[in-house]
Amino acid sequence: MTTETRITVRYAETDQMGIVHHSVYPIWFEAARTDWIKQLGLTYSQLEKMGVMTPLSQLECRYTGVSRYEDELTIRCFVSELSAARIRFGYEVLRPGEERPICTGSTLHGWVDAQTFRPLNFRKRFPEFYEKIEAMLQD
Amino acid sequence: MTTETRITVRYAETDQMGIVHHSVYPIWFEAARTDWIKQLGLTYSQLEKMGVMTPLSQLECRYTGVSRYEDELTIRCFVSELSAARIRFGYEVLRPGEERPICTGSTLHGWVDAQTFRPLNFRKRFPEFYEKIEAMLQD
Amino acid sequence: MTTETRITVRYAETDQMGIVHHSVYPIWFEAARTDWIKQLGLTYSQLEKMGVMTPLSQLECRYTGVSRYEDELTIRCFVSELSAARIRFGYEVLRPGEERPICTGSTLHGWVDAQTFRPLNFRKRFPEFYEKIEAMLQD
Amino acid sequence: MTTETRITVRYAETDQMGIVHHSVYPIWFEAARTDWIKQLGLTYSQLEKMGVMTPLSQLECRYTGVSRYEDELTIRCFVSELSAARIRFGYEVLRPGEERPICTGSTLHGWVDAQTFRPLNFRKRFPEFYEKIEAMLQD
Repeated sequence: MTTETRITVRYAETDQMGIVHHSVYPIWFEAARTDWIKQLGLTYSQLEKMGVMTPLSQLECRYTGVSRYEDELTIRCFVSELSAARIRFGYEVLRPGEERPICTGSTLHGWVDAQTFRPLNFRKRFPEFYEKIEAMLQD
Repeated sequence: MTTETRITVRYAETDQMGIVHHSVYPIWFEAARTDWIKQLGLTYSQLEKMGVMTPLSQLECRYTGVSRYEDELTIRCFVSELSAARIRFGYEVLRPGEERPICTGSTLHGWVDAQTFRPLNFRKRFPEFYEKIEAMLQD
Repeated sequence: MTTETRITVRYAETDQMGIVHHSVYPIWFEAARTDWIKQLGLTYSQLEKMGVMTPLSQLECRYTGVSRYEDELTIRCFVSELSAARIRFGYEVLRPGEERPICTGSTLHGWVDAQTFRPLNFRKRFPEFYEKIEAMLQD
Repeated sequence: MTTETRITVRYAETDQMGIVHHSVYPIWFEAARTDWIKQLGLTYSQLEKMGVMTPLSQLECRYTGVSRYEDELTIRCFVSELSAARIRFGYEVLRPGEERPICTGSTLHGWVDAQTFRPLNFRKRFPEFYEKIEAMLQD
């Protein structure tokens, strides 16, 4: 239900403060989301080929620690909300030796038709996947 | 009080959906913040040399539209909260021909000592700048 | 023939060395290329809509200086080679107060069909634009 | 002598052509370099703490194929040149199912003093590491 994705911090991800730039965390969230989706037995690439896209409508990050070049981090990912129109993922970024996550976040996505870029009813169009995700929902 | 920063969307900022990747907006916010700070009569680079850093503690974005390669956008930036310990900026991303912003957001920053990376009391340390910012606060 | 594009260095473009990360220069080159192409009386977006893409086959950068956050740089861009199959752009990154460019580079691009991703003969398909570019060639 | 680093392509690394943007490969090269250096029994972070930085003076990439979101790539990295003043790394990016690398490249770096940002004689300052690298040189 909750996946764990390992990330090694890249030099290019640091900034002149000597820490990872805050805009990098959403990119890691996305890598974690990619892994989460594989649990459904398909890849996000396949989902796009099936005509579904999931553009973001909201992003939230709380930064309570920092990470640095070469850190080996774990990104935890889970689904916290699901409807016919939307899905929300939650994230925690863990750094070895620290108990609290250094960053937590969430992203809200619309289910969108890849051709028209308009909302689609995911429950109706893909009932099987909808049920699978529903069963994996986390509080 | 509210600054406007012009941005032309770069090819590298798009993704395979054909739109700007959501992680790029926080980078534009930062460019807008850089311009906002210049209103104080100093640059953010000078602020860092004076021993102050402003790492993010929160980031929020709401995406209500999309932008594409070569779009000429305007990023509006203002300060919505100020205390001795923190400052919050708000943002709106405007696309020509659209009335509603395509993205709105906010970032919360701690005032931090550049050497120790620990909180500092900005009001006490830089009363002159504190007052200047206070006078520019937006509801 | 040679265009000049202004860039203000973004915080996110720096790394923990305190200078701009080398992977950012190719992104600036691309912004400069976008401006160069406008001289033809069309945008690169329009070129893509006409069915042409120009993926890179080579990239070369020489770094002889550094740039820093908030620097206001000029990217000079010109075309140094043209054939029915390929086009090469050259670049110089200039920093105020320095005579020598801080970075020079070149990119080689194939003319590719946007649908099939296969080489196309640009001279035959778009003779008018071919001639325009030829007239702008720089030694 | 040659290290292999695994990379899974991130969504943010694609562009509107539907392939990985060319500016991402140098970032992968750097991740590969980070792994190569670990063979010396130290990390690049430690090297920086010992007062050594290795800014790029040259970058070359040849793109002969493309990569896409979720591809699982291998980045091969080796050292092709070494002197008291400089070090050159070579790279190959391999995609499963393709014999030829989709991208090859090299980076040339100066040995630089972390405080002064001026050239240092790496052979004299760190003879032990110099000999280790020399023994790992690849034709």
